[in-house]
This record gives sequence, structure tokens and C-alpha cells, in this order.
Amino acid sequence: MNTSTQLRSAIRDIPDFPKPGILFRDITPVLASAPLFRAAIAEFANICREANAEKIAGIDARGFLFGATVAYELGLGFVPVRKKGKLPFHTIAQSYDLEYGSSEVEIHTDAFEKGEKIALIDDLLATGGTAGAAIKLIDQSGAHVVAAAFLIELADLGGRKALGDVPVTALVSYA
Amino acid sequence: MNTSTQLRSAIRDIPDFPKPGILFRDITPVLASAPLFRAAIAEFANICREANAEKIAGIDARGFLFGATVAYELGLGFVPVRKKGKLPFHTIAQSYDLEYGSSEVEIHTDAFEKGEKIALIDDLLATGGTAGAAIKLIDQSGAHVVAAAFLIELADLGGRKALGDVPVTALVSYA
Repeated sequence: MNTSTQLRSAIRDIPDFPKPGILFRDITPVLASAPLFRAAIAEFANICREANAEKIAGIDARGFLFGATVAYELGLGFVPVRKKGKLPFHTIAQSYDLEYGSSEVEIHTDAFEKGEKIALIDDLLATGGTAGAAIKLIDQSGAHVVAAAFLIELADLGGRKALGDVPVTALVSYA
Repeated sequence: MNTSTQLRSAIRDIPDFPKPGILFRDITPVLASAPLFRAAIAEFANICREANAEKIAGIDARGFLFGATVAYELGLGFVPVRKKGKLPFHTIAQSYDLEYGSSEVEIHTDAFEKGEKIALIDDLLATGGTAGAAIKLIDQSGAHVVAAAFLIELADLGGRKALGDVPVTALVSYA
């Protein structure tokens, strides 16, 4: 089995979470398995290497699991993209639409250098709201997102459209 | 300089965050520096190795950054301890006191095996409320916390007392 198939077999479907009608893809079995987690990190690392990423950004909170580990594997620095109010230094914020209402993500103003090549990592690409907002923040900092990589893509939600010209890779895609 | 001194030099003090009178220790400069992050992970990994940990648990959200990476380095599985409502499968929850009110953390009921030796990792030991609750959950699962390791300890808040007999290590301690 290739890595994508192995990951797909491990990801657990949880119906009606967080609310009725939603089928949640539970990645905790991937984290619990050292070989599977290692295989996922190897795939992420390849994507970042091929894109010549110079720094890794990961989205709060599950993106931290993969993003920080990939940064470690590649010997690159890591930047957290956080929910509003969590980062203590000077920040810039970007809001994005949710099904009902909106939310905001933030980065530190000193997180990126001008022209720096950034790989953005998260566990899930759904509608692309959070990742799209993160890309806007990174662009606003003068850095450049050269790759966006996700463990899971829910392809029928069309999240890639929210990410503009950024090359997108998902290790596992659900129709 | 040893690792502790290097980490201490990089950690940034932010006064009055998240509210007036609180001096926040900002670890984002540690994450942004690949050599410093690597040095911190090496220290965490040594602690876990010496305690013969068989699995790593990390606390939502900054504990994910260190915990998942240490699990990767050691070739062990990782378990997220999360804020209430975030984990999709069957969970057990433990509440703990905050300065005003209380909060709850959860783990999946299938996260640990009976008798398994667990290292608990987080970025910060303050009053010990969250880590103490996490230890109770792990004990309740029939596993056993053999080490609790933190990047930072705010020693004058006395958090170690909340962790019972669990051996505690902090890479950087502030009086």
C-alpha cells in the first residue's frame, strides 16, 4: 500500500460530529501510529523540499502537529498561524467566513522576512477559509506561499479555489 | 551556552498579555529558530527516553508543537489532550480550576493501553491545572505518566504540587 492508501485506511469516520449531518475525519489513529505519522511527515517534507520552502507555517491547532514536525525534519523555522487573541506580540489579523458568522486568524508581524518562501501546512482543507486567510496574512508580510499541503482534502467543498495561485497538495482526498 | 540558557535568551517577555499585570513568555522565537527548536526537542527526547516512555501525550495547542515532534524523533505514537468538544470519538473529560471559573480537557477513550508508560509534554507549567487534569485522565485510562516535561516553568506558581508524584522537568524555569 502506498502512503495515501495507508493513511486513508487509518483515518476514522465519525458521523454527526461536531453536529448532525457532518462526517468528521478523525486523524488521531494516524498520530497514534509512529510509522504512519512518519510516513505522513515524509510526504509533507517532500512537498516542502520540492517547493524550496525556507520556513514552515502551521495553522492552530492540528496544523501544529504536522507543521512543527515537518519544520524539525527539514531543519527550518516554524511559524504558528493562530486564532485571534492567542499571539502575544504585535499581530496582523485576517477574517474569513464560516457557515454562520466569521472568524479571524493572526500572525506576528515579525514572523516572516520579505521574499521568504513559505510552505503552509494544516490537517484539513475544507472550504479553504482558514488557509486562504493565512495565505493573505503571509502575502501581507511580504513573504510568499510556495506550497499549501494538507493531510486531508474534502474535494467537493472546493477549498482550492480559496487559495488562489498557491500550489495545493493533499495526502488523502475525499470526493 | 547550554540549551537552557540559549532558550531563555530567545524567549521574549511580553508585559500585560493577555491582560494587565501578566508577563507572558513568548516562545515563538524558539519555534522560528531551527537550531533552538532542535535543541529543545533533543532535551525533551532525552527526558522521555530516560523515563522509558512508550507514548507521548501533548496538550492543546502549544503542547502539540513539542509533543508531536518529540514523538516523531523517538518513533513513538502521539496522543492529543484537547480542550472540551474538539475530539470526535468517545471521550473522558476532566475539569480543572482557572483563576475565574473552570475549564475541561478531554482524551479519547481508546488513546492509551493499560499499563502503558506515558510522557506528558506542554510548553508551560504555571499553576498545573491543565497538566494535573491531563494526568488524571491518563491514570483513569489505566496508563501511567512516567514524566511530565515543559519548555517553561513559572516556579513561583507552584504547579508541581498539582502533578502529584509525577517526575517534572522544565527546560527553563522562572522564579
